[in-house]
Amino acid sequence: LQFVDCGTSGGVWGLAEGYSMMVGGDASVVERLRPIFETLAPAKDRGWGRVGPVGSGHFTKMVHNGIEYGLMQAYAEGFSIMEHKQDFSLDLHQVAEIWRDGSVVRSWLLDLISAAFEKNPKLTGIAPYVADSGEGRWTVAEAIDLDVAAPVIALSLLARLRSRDADSFSDKLLSAMRNQFGGHPIKQE
Amino acid sequence: LQFVDCGTSGGVWGLAEGYSMMVGGDASVVERLRPIFETLAPAKDRGWGRVGPVGSGHFTKMVHNGIEYGLMQAYAEGFSIMEHKQDFSLDLHQVAEIWRDGSVVRSWLLDLISAAFEKNPKLTGIAPYVADSGEGRWTVAEAIDLDVAAPVIALSLLARLRSRDADSFSDKLLSAMRNQFGGHPIKQE
Amino acid sequence: LQFVDCGTSGGVWGLAEGYSMMVGGDASVVERLRPIFETLAPAKDRGWGRVGPVGSGHFTKMVHNGIEYGLMQAYAEGFSIMEHKQDFSLDLHQVAEIWRDGSVVRSWLLDLISAAFEKNPKLTGIAPYVADSGEGRWTVAEAIDLDVAAPVIALSLLARLRSRDADSFSDKLLSAMRNQFGGHPIKQE
Amino acid sequence: LQFVDCGTSGGVWGLAEGYSMMVGGDASVVERLRPIFETLAPAKDRGWGRVGPVGSGHFTKMVHNGIEYGLMQAYAEGFSIMEHKQDFSLDLHQVAEIWRDGSVVRSWLLDLISAAFEKNPKLTGIAPYVADSGEGRWTVAEAIDLDVAAPVIALSLLARLRSRDADSFSDKLLSAMRNQFGGHPIKQE
Repeated sequence: LQFVDCGTSGGVWGLAEGYSMMVGGDASVVERLRPIFETLAPAKDRGWGRVGPVGSGHFTKMVHNGIEYGLMQAYAEGFSIMEHKQDFSLDLHQVAEIWRDGSVVRSWLLDLISAAFEKNPKLTGIAPYVADSGEGRWTVAEAIDLDVAAPVIALSLLARLRSRDADSFSDKLLSAMRNQFGGHPIKQE
Repeated sequence: LQFVDCGTSGGVWGLAEGYSMMVGGDASVVERLRPIFETLAPAKDRGWGRVGPVGSGHFTKMVHNGIEYGLMQAYAEGFSIMEHKQDFSLDLHQVAEIWRDGSVVRSWLLDLISAAFEKNPKLTGIAPYVADSGEGRWTVAEAIDLDVAAPVIALSLLARLRSRDADSFSDKLLSAMRNQFGGHPIKQE
Repeated sequence: LQFVDCGTSGGVWGLAEGYSMMVGGDASVVERLRPIFETLAPAKDRGWGRVGPVGSGHFTKMVHNGIEYGLMQAYAEGFSIMEHKQDFSLDLHQVAEIWRDGSVVRSWLLDLISAAFEKNPKLTGIAPYVADSGEGRWTVAEAIDLDVAAPVIALSLLARLRSRDADSFSDKLLSAMRNQFGGHPIKQE
Repeated sequence: LQFVDCGTSGGVWGLAEGYSMMVGGDASVVERLRPIFETLAPAKDRGWGRVGPVGSGHFTKMVHNGIEYGLMQAYAEGFSIMEHKQDFSLDLHQVAEIWRDGSVVRSWLLDLISAAFEKNPKLTGIAPYVADSGEGRWTVAEAIDLDVAAPVIALSLLARLRSRDADSFSDKLLSAMRNQFGGHPIKQE
């Protein structure tokens, strides 16, 4: 009895665009299963590979998603800055489109951002509420466990937690403190 | 003609409890004005002093407030964690009172937190909205200008900005991205 | 058989200055042990109290230490900014002393900072290496588990991890990336 | 006399791969210059466009670089976590290669990371020292000025500042504080 694990990434586009596979297991076992991976992969020799022993496939996938959180947050912040620069009335879809060719920040996520803005330029009707499905938390926990400072991945997760807290207790306490020491008025709910 | 600058801290409690003064100016000039500072200070030889040349008084006061942002945010986060630990139904006023004597985190800000919880244990009616009056921004700008990494002071300021943005564009875009790549449902506004 | 737990804070100064106690347990059990706590506490009715059921004493102590990390980091950043403002040649011990009376940031930690600067004004011979003893990690883990965004406590922990990594792999990779896309020179080790 | 501004991105690869252009100016003026942009752009109708009035081209480019900082830091942290997971002895070049096809984090920066690891799998000889050329600072300043919380872009900049401070004063002070209150040993320089 032998084990292999395989993390995957590609989202709902996987069927159309292919999806990548990070395989963990003994080299000989992975080799024996090669035909399966070659069939499933975006190309025979692309988008899949053995990354280490059993367990390392899902570990790698977990870190992949931690990175994804950071990338998403970086784009989100940048577009938010541009959206708030009202003097310039920037066309965010246009900006995303321009960046898709030749820029340093071109990426598949940027392609999706452009598609999102094309469909809904002002993001009308979308609540500022961001779920998370676990991998970000696990990546942060693992980083701390390994004594690795990963501030951007950690803060990306925290930004999501914050997005779901419409009644932040810590912000209320800050307001109460400012009132206490400085007599600053408290905004009432 | 000679100049002296003087930053001060103590808030609205200054009249009752005294307030500290950070003085900037030539030593001889500050010395000449000594009677003024000795009269205004909490005690003749306490709570005031020359910190450097003209301008350094307000600089020191600015950094004081940057630190204040960080201290406030640290307490606010800690009490928020305790408030969310609903299994324990912690009495936050009681916790603050205990910490006022003998603990490592005892401080004047903690005294004020305790007073705030005494008056309003659940912070009822207080909006999670935190103003800022400039010194935090200037401290962050100065830190970056000096190539000093000050993540906690910076994040304290950003937490305040975030508290005032009930309709975060970046969170909307994150939600739109998650929908794009993963088919994750968008929460509607 | 009944259980009580008791977190404590006060550090090595506890013997001289007293130490605070956060007690968890059934009210009746804590009441029965009252003479013990009254004897150990800084004063009969100060610096100790029941905060909730069994386990809540150490939980409260854990969060106390998380807050402590944030407070320490806020002061450290502020003094670092002042130290780097070389135009002003600020006397950091003097600044700490002034703030001890009347300022908003006065605290016991500030008293210790002042004592540290009195003994060693330039912090000569002290390595920029900060240990951690666990409570910060647990506070961050608990905050995330409770969906509470605690960026300052998290960043305080990460700053300590970073302080112990003199050969940061992520910084090396950033340097390699900058070289790849921009031809920016790599600093050699 | 009329003005047009044009930000560009693409790095040293621009000649081979094309570079994107973000143009600011009156629509009629940009239209008149269309042949120039069509000639310089990666394709006639790709990788360039008018984003708004004069000044908005460089503004957009500035934000582009702010995002770039965040993207780079997210990848750097993720690969650092994997590098530290020594149980798995992950082949980082292999991981980057796998992700280039089908994964959610595929991007041009990832292509460059893969190229960097191919050339130097352990990043041997590269100092953990990351320069910055200004746009990150300006993006952070602009975000704060617009009241936009951009924690990931801010932290990416701060990570670079931190990388260049081998003798962190704030870490020394933290160590001194821990010694003061807890008797924790100070690591000597």
